[in-house]
Amino acid sequence: MVDELPDGLVPRHPMPDDQRRVLAVMDAWWAGFQGDAGSLQRSLLLPRLFFQHFTDSSFLVERDDGALVAFLVGFVSQSQPEVAYIHFVGVDPSVRRRGVGVSLYHRFFRLATARGCRRVRCVTSPGNAASLAFHTGIGFQVEPGDAMIEGLPVHRDYDGPGLHRVAFTRTLTDPTSRL
Amino acid sequence: MVDELPDGLVPRHPMPDDQRRVLAVMDAWWAGFQGDAGSLQRSLLLPRLFFQHFTDSSFLVERDDGALVAFLVGFVSQSQPEVAYIHFVGVDPSVRRRGVGVSLYHRFFRLATARGCRRVRCVTSPGNAASLAFHTGIGFQVEPGDAMIEGLPVHRDYDGPGLHRVAFTRTLTDPTSRL
Repeated sequence: MVDELPDGLVPRHPMPDDQRRVLAVMDAWWAGFQGDAGSLQRSLLLPRLFFQHFTDSSFLVERDDGALVAFLVGFVSQSQPEVAYIHFVGVDPSVRRRGVGVSLYHRFFRLATARGCRRVRCVTSPGNAASLAFHTGIGFQVEPGDAMIEGLPVHRDYDGPGLHRVAFTRTLTDPTSRL
Repeated sequence: MVDELPDGLVPRHPMPDDQRRVLAVMDAWWAGFQGDAGSLQRSLLLPRLFFQHFTDSSFLVERDDGALVAFLVGFVSQSQPEVAYIHFVGVDPSVRRRGVGVSLYHRFFRLATARGCRRVRCVTSPGNAASLAFHTGIGFQVEPGDAMIEGLPVHRDYDGPGLHRVAFTRTLTDPTSRL
């Protein structure tokens, strides 16, 4: 199945204290992107509330020695019950290109489908070519934006002044999408 | 009723584009606290997702001329359905001490009770005496922490390194709490 993980990797739902572990690896996984300011920004995007109140729709992946190698934080929209949203995903560079990210997304798609959602949405930063390729590769479409940056539709100031985003959506009901 | 607003103030649920309006007033309402870094931090704590996916449990208050004077962003916990969580609240300094904040909290308490929640949780930063007085004044209790700062129990690194928090909880089932 497309949501199977490589041998030796085990998924589970996160608990509140896993937030520290996720924050602790992010600087390494993001290669210190934007230094201390970047580190603080990543912390603020993952306040503890996500590890308290959205644990049942979020996932961690650990090696059998207990080391954290990936996470996905997502939820079902409270005000749009047909929509699920993926907020933040990270994969340890040492296990990339082995299908770990794809597996986590498909686990989330399956969970969201079981809860009655019809589509999944998420955003990424403009210029993140790897993220763009990943999302379009697993069936996301880029939503129209209000400007073009590097050939892609972008929502300017989507998350705040200067925080432009590319928005993705993927149907969960298309029978040709492999779930 | 305790959730009535002063004359001329009108509540409604927010829409996605209200996020820009909320971010635009925050620097003024927080008196530019911590400068540009503080402004960015406030943006990151209120990404657009809260104005897309948790609108039905969140509130804005506008004057009858349309000016924004208060907001409350909250949700029902997805993984702990008996818990509701208040994430971020702001009140225009020009309307403070008129019960606007109390009214918004009580609106949220009523909504959470109607959805089957038994308690409401929220956090604030250590040393925010006004927030402490406000929350204890409307029936919140301070949760035990892992350190004492200025005489209060604090959860160190609660939201990330250096992001200490005081945690509050308030029952919704106590018949003596005026709802």
